[in-house]
Amino acid sequence: MSVAIKRLQSTAPDFQARLDALLAFEAAQDDQIDRTVSAILADVKARGDQAVVEYTNRFDRLAVAGMDALELPRAELQAALDGLPAPRRQALEAAAGRIRAFHERQLGHGFRYEEEDGTLLGQMVTPLDRVGLYVPGGKAAYPSSVLMNAIPAKVAGVKELIMVVPTPGGERNPLVLAAACLAGVDRVFAIGGAQAVAALAFGTQTVPQVDKIVGPGNAYVACAKRRVFGIVGIDMVAGPSEILVLADGSTDPDWVAMDLFSQAEHDELAQAVLICPDGAYIDRVQASIEKLLPTMPRRAVIQASLENRGALIQVRDLEEACLIANRVAPEHLELSLAEPDAWVEKIHHAGAIFIGPYTSEALGDYCAGPNHVLPTSGSARFSSPLGVYDFQKRTSLIRVSREGSQTLGRIAATLADGEGLPAHAQSASYRVED
Amino acid sequence: MSVAIKRLQSTAPDFQARLDALLAFEAAQDDQIDRTVSAILADVKARGDQAVVEYTNRFDRLAVAGMDALELPRAELQAALDGLPAPRRQALEAAAGRIRAFHERQLGHGFRYEEEDGTLLGQMVTPLDRVGLYVPGGKAAYPSSVLMNAIPAKVAGVKELIMVVPTPGGERNPLVLAAACLAGVDRVFAIGGAQAVAALAFGTQTVPQVDKIVGPGNAYVACAKRRVFGIVGIDMVAGPSEILVLADGSTDPDWVAMDLFSQAEHDELAQAVLICPDGAYIDRVQASIEKLLPTMPRRAVIQASLENRGALIQVRDLEEACLIANRVAPEHLELSLAEPDAWVEKIHHAGAIFIGPYTSEALGDYCAGPNHVLPTSGSARFSSPLGVYDFQKRTSLIRVSREGSQTLGRIAATLADGEGLPAHAQSASYRVED
Repeated sequence: MSVAIKRLQSTAPDFQARLDALLAFEAAQDDQIDRTVSAILADVKARGDQAVVEYTNRFDRLAVAGMDALELPRAELQAALDGLPAPRRQALEAAAGRIRAFHERQLGHGFRYEEEDGTLLGQMVTPLDRVGLYVPGGKAAYPSSVLMNAIPAKVAGVKELIMVVPTPGGERNPLVLAAACLAGVDRVFAIGGAQAVAALAFGTQTVPQVDKIVGPGNAYVACAKRRVFGIVGIDMVAGPSEILVLADGSTDPDWVAMDLFSQAEHDELAQAVLICPDGAYIDRVQASIEKLLPTMPRRAVIQASLENRGALIQVRDLEEACLIANRVAPEHLELSLAEPDAWVEKIHHAGAIFIGPYTSEALGDYCAGPNHVLPTSGSARFSSPLGVYDFQKRTSLIRVSREGSQTLGRIAATLADGEGLPAHAQSASYRVED
Repeated sequence: MSVAIKRLQSTAPDFQARLDALLAFEAAQDDQIDRTVSAILADVKARGDQAVVEYTNRFDRLAVAGMDALELPRAELQAALDGLPAPRRQALEAAAGRIRAFHERQLGHGFRYEEEDGTLLGQMVTPLDRVGLYVPGGKAAYPSSVLMNAIPAKVAGVKELIMVVPTPGGERNPLVLAAACLAGVDRVFAIGGAQAVAALAFGTQTVPQVDKIVGPGNAYVACAKRRVFGIVGIDMVAGPSEILVLADGSTDPDWVAMDLFSQAEHDELAQAVLICPDGAYIDRVQASIEKLLPTMPRRAVIQASLENRGALIQVRDLEEACLIANRVAPEHLELSLAEPDAWVEKIHHAGAIFIGPYTSEALGDYCAGPNHVLPTSGSARFSSPLGVYDFQKRTSLIRVSREGSQTLGRIAATLADGEGLPAHAQSASYRVED
C-alpha cells in the first residue's frame, strides 16, 4: 500500500513556503449555514419551547408533544451507568477520577491585601452559576468529551450543569449518558443543533438560560455559538485535530506511525506531522505507515488525512525541530525522545506536551488527567487547554480608606482633567478634604 | 433643571419587565461596516504596508510615502514623557506604579506533580510572545487606557508589545505617548482603524504579526477584531460603560450624584443606576442631580445618558438590592454603605466592586491598581477584568512512565474501543507489555 504523504526537508530553499502551505487552514464560512442558524436563533428566542420542539421533531425525526418528553430523567443516566459492562465502567470511573484529580489543582483562588493607610485591594474568584454542555449525537458522540467538559465545571463549583445531546431517530448513547452521570451533570435535554444552543443562550419556558456554553459540535452548532457569544460565554470554536511528533529515532517506528494514525483517524482534515533529524528513521516510520495502514478499520480516513494534510519533515537537528514546533504551535506535541526532559523548556507554544516514548497522545485523550480540549490551528500561541479557570471568573475588590481617598483622589483628579472627564475629576475630588 | 430619569419600585407588579427593558442592550450589527472592514482586511493581508499606508493617508488625512514615516521612534515617547508638567507626570507615574503592584499579584504559575509510578503531570505557564495594543485617536484617547492594557502584558512577560494609535491630521497625543513610554511599550505605529487591526493580525513587511490584540476602538475596530479572532486572540469587545450604585442613604447625595455622572459623561449609551431602600434618600440624590447637572461641562451627554438608560430604583431592603445587582452583573458596582464589608460576599457577579463611600469609581478608573477594562452588558456573569492572565497561556505536561503506561494504556484502549477509534486503542496498547 503506497501512502503519498509529503516529505519536507528544512534545508530546501522553499521549505518555509511549503511549511506555510501545510499549515494554512481557514475554516470555511458558509453563508447558507449562517442564514439558517440566524433564523433558528431568532425563532427560539421568540417562541421558546414550542420552536425547540418543532425543530427537534423535524431534524431528529421525532414526534414528541412537548419539552417534557425531551428531558432525560436522572434515573435514566444512572441506569445507563449501571448497565455498562464492568471493564468499561471501571475504565470510565478511573478516567473520571484522574481527570478530577488533575483539575482540582487548577482551582483558582482570590487574593486581598491591605495597604498602610487601610486601603484594601483584591480579587474575588467565583464560579459561573449555570453552564450548558453541548454533546454531539451520532458518530462523534464521545463519552470522554463529556468527562473533559463536565468535570472542570463541577470542580470550579458550577451549581447547575445542563447537557444537551441530540438523539436522531430517538437513539440514545448509553456511554454518553453514563459519563454524564459520573461527571455530575445536573440536567440533560435530548436536543441538539442551533436550536439547542439557542435554548441555552436565551432560555425557554423549560430550559434555563445559562451563562456559558461549552463543547464541540458541527458547523451549525459552531456558527450558533459564535452568534450567541456576548449574550453568554463560549469556549473556543475548535478546528481539526492535530499532532506533531518530534522524534530522535529512538522510538519503535510502529509506535510513531500508530500515534500519527490516532490523530489522522479523527477526520480527513486532521493533521499528523513527524519532525526528525534522521532521514533513515523517517524512512522506517514511512515503512511502518505502509505496513500498518491496511490493518486499520478506519484506513480510508487515515490515508486521506495523511495525504491531504500530513507530512514527514527532516530537520538539521532537534534545536531546529523545536523552532518549527513553536512556529506550528500544535494542539498535541509528542516529544518521542530518549532524553526528553531537557527539551520541554524549549517549547513555548503547544496545547499539551506528551513527554517520552511511553506517553502516546491517546493516553491524554482519555485518562492521563489533563484536558483533551486543546487549542487548535496555532491558537496555542495565545490560548490554553479547557480548564477549571474557564468556569470561574474574577471580580476586582477596591475599598479605599478615608485616608487613602486623599492621595488617590488627587491623582485621579489630575489624570481625569488630562482626559477631559470633569465628572470623574469632581467625583474623586469630593472625597479629598482640604 | 429637570432631569427625566426613570424611577422604579421593586414592589411594582411590572418591575421585572421594566428592569429587563432597562437592561436590554444589543450592539447593532452594521452590514455596511462589516463589508468595509472585510475589504480592508483582505487588502492589507494581500498588499501589506502599501495598503496600510494608503488607508492611513486617506482616513487620517496624511501624505506619508511609506510605513517608516508611521513608526514613532522611542525618543519621541521619551520626549513626550519628559515634556509633561510635573504634577501630571507624577500622577501618571503613581498610577503606573500602583497598577503594576496590583497586577504582579495576578501572575500565574504552573504546577507539576509526580505519581507513585513515576508518571509526571503538570501545567506550564508561558507569556504570549507578541501583543498588539489598539489605542483610539481623537476624543477617546485615554492615557489611563494605555497603562491598563500595557502594564498587565509587560507583567506577564510579553516580549514585544506593539501599540497602534491613529493620528488624524497628524495630531499626536503627548499624554498617550508618555503613558506608552512609562508602560514599556516596545514599538508604536501611527495607524488606526481596521487597517491597523489587519496589520497586527496578519503582519506586514514592517509591522510584525502579533498573537493577540487588545484595547478599545470604534465600530470599525470592533468589527475588525471580531473578524480576525481565531487568527489572533482578542480581548472582549466592550459595550457601553455602566455603574450600579447600591446605597443605604448614609453617603452625601452629592457624592452619589457625581458618581452617577462620572459614568454618564462617557457617552449617551452609558448606564448609571442607583438602587436604594430609602425613597427619601433617592429624592435627595435626584435633587443633587438637578442641582449639579448645570455645573457640568459635559451636561448634555450626562442628561441624555441618564434619561435614556439611567434609573433610580427603590427596593425593599439591601438583600433585595444584592439580588438585583447579581441579576444586572454590572461592570462597576459601588457599595455606598456605612457597613459595606458584610455585603461584599453577597455579590456574585460584577466586574469590580467599589466598597464604602470613599471608593468612588473614578479612583478605580485611574489609580487604585485593579484594571479598568471590565466586563460590560452583564458579561460579568461569565468573564473577568483584563488581567495578567490574559497575556499568559497554559500548556499541559504529561510524561507517563513505562510502568504508568501499563495501567493507563489499558484504560485508554478500553475507552477508545467504546468510541470506535481503533488507532487510539492500538497506540495505547502498543505500550502495554503483557
